Amino acid sequence: MSKNIITISREFGSGGRTIAKEVAKKLGYAYYDKELVKQISMETGFSEGFVEENGEYASAKNWLAAAFSHLSFPGVMAGPSMDDFLWAMQRKVILDLAEKGKCVIVGRCADFILKDRTDCFHVFIHADPKARAERIVRRYGTSEQSPEKRLDDKDRRRRLYYKHYTEREWGMAQNYHLSLNSGEIGQERCVEMIVQLAQAL
Amino acid sequence: MSKNIITISREFGSGGRTIAKEVAKKLGYAYYDKELVKQISMETGFSEGFVEENGEYASAKNWLAAAFSHLSFPGVMAGPSMDDFLWAMQRKVILDLAEKGKCVIVGRCADFILKDRTDCFHVFIHADPKARAERIVRRYGTSEQSPEKRLDDKDRRRRLYYKHYTEREWGMAQNYHLSLNSGEIGQERCVEMIVQLAQAL
Repeated sequence: MSKNIITISREFGSGGRTIAKEVAKKLGYAYYDKELVKQISMETGFSEGFVEENGEYASAKNWLAAAFSHLSFPGVMAGPSMDDFLWAMQRKVILDLAEKGKCVIVGRCADFILKDRTDCFHVFIHADPKARAERIVRRYGTSEQSPEKRLDDKDRRRRLYYKHYTEREWGMAQNYHLSLNSGEIGQERCVEMIVQLAQAL
Repeated sequence: MSKNIITISREFGSGGRTIAKEVAKKLGYAYYDKELVKQISMETGFSEGFVEENGEYASAKNWLAAAFSHLSFPGVMAGPSMDDFLWAMQRKVILDLAEKGKCVIVGRCADFILKDRTDCFHVFIHADPKARAERIVRRYGTSEQSPEKRLDDKDRRRRLYYKHYTEREWGMAQNYHLSLNSGEIGQERCVEMIVQLAQAL
């Protein structure tokens, strides 16, 4: 039996998205990344930019609000936050897509959302900070923030988001079947390994 | 350039030791596991049993003592504990062995101790609790404690030990170049992947 669904979680700047796209191409699987954002945007009515930013990252504003959400104010209704609504819809879209058949899904806690399906193969791509910093400058150019600061910020917010909704630690090897340091192993070899395993298992 | 040194860290019951032995055999590398314990025992004067138990696992007694070590009592000298001494000697033995050339080293925080060498390849082997529980019963038989309890206990003590001496989280994918779920991927395939990468990188 081959694995029908491959989830690829990745550190910012590790090349995980490029690897995922290549894996999908080689296996002839559907590839859900921007497509996923588009669908979630349609289902929720939120803009694609909003979904992209808030469906994987904790934002300082919302998380500060969450920290004080136990304080109730007279006349103010308590209820799920916008983040919680987005999470619920994102979860539903991912579960539905998985039903449609062979695909590669990038990020968005899909490893957790699909953890009980036995036809999934969960991959985590990471790399050393130096390799990631070089890659984001090459790919996205420089900005006012140093690349190290950008990595730190993204890592921290992704970790917070993952922890909040999954109650697991982001980046723990035990959450994945295969974890690869793409800087050390090389992107092409990562692609080959994932493709081979997806076909063999 | 091939990788001269392969460190294999593993969850109890994941088959990591068996995989490590097979990798060493296929690559024709020296294999340090019991051999390492023997050397540390010779250098420290501690028994092999003591080294085996205290060189990777936090023991309740010692760690309770450590928790109160900031309290000083008149006339009692503060100094490194027996665990700290064992750690220092273990570290020295591992650094020396790495100098000797091609080898596979199992456990004992070797991934951390050798993290600055560029000729090392760091691997983490894990598996789902169910697969590990079945394996330890098959391998070590049953005992009064349930296999789940034995796994929990070992995991917790290993995590504590690793955290104390390395200040890193045990099992984080980022600490390794390659992390594999041996239950899902299969031991033979794990061996092949490690061997191929060690030769290719």
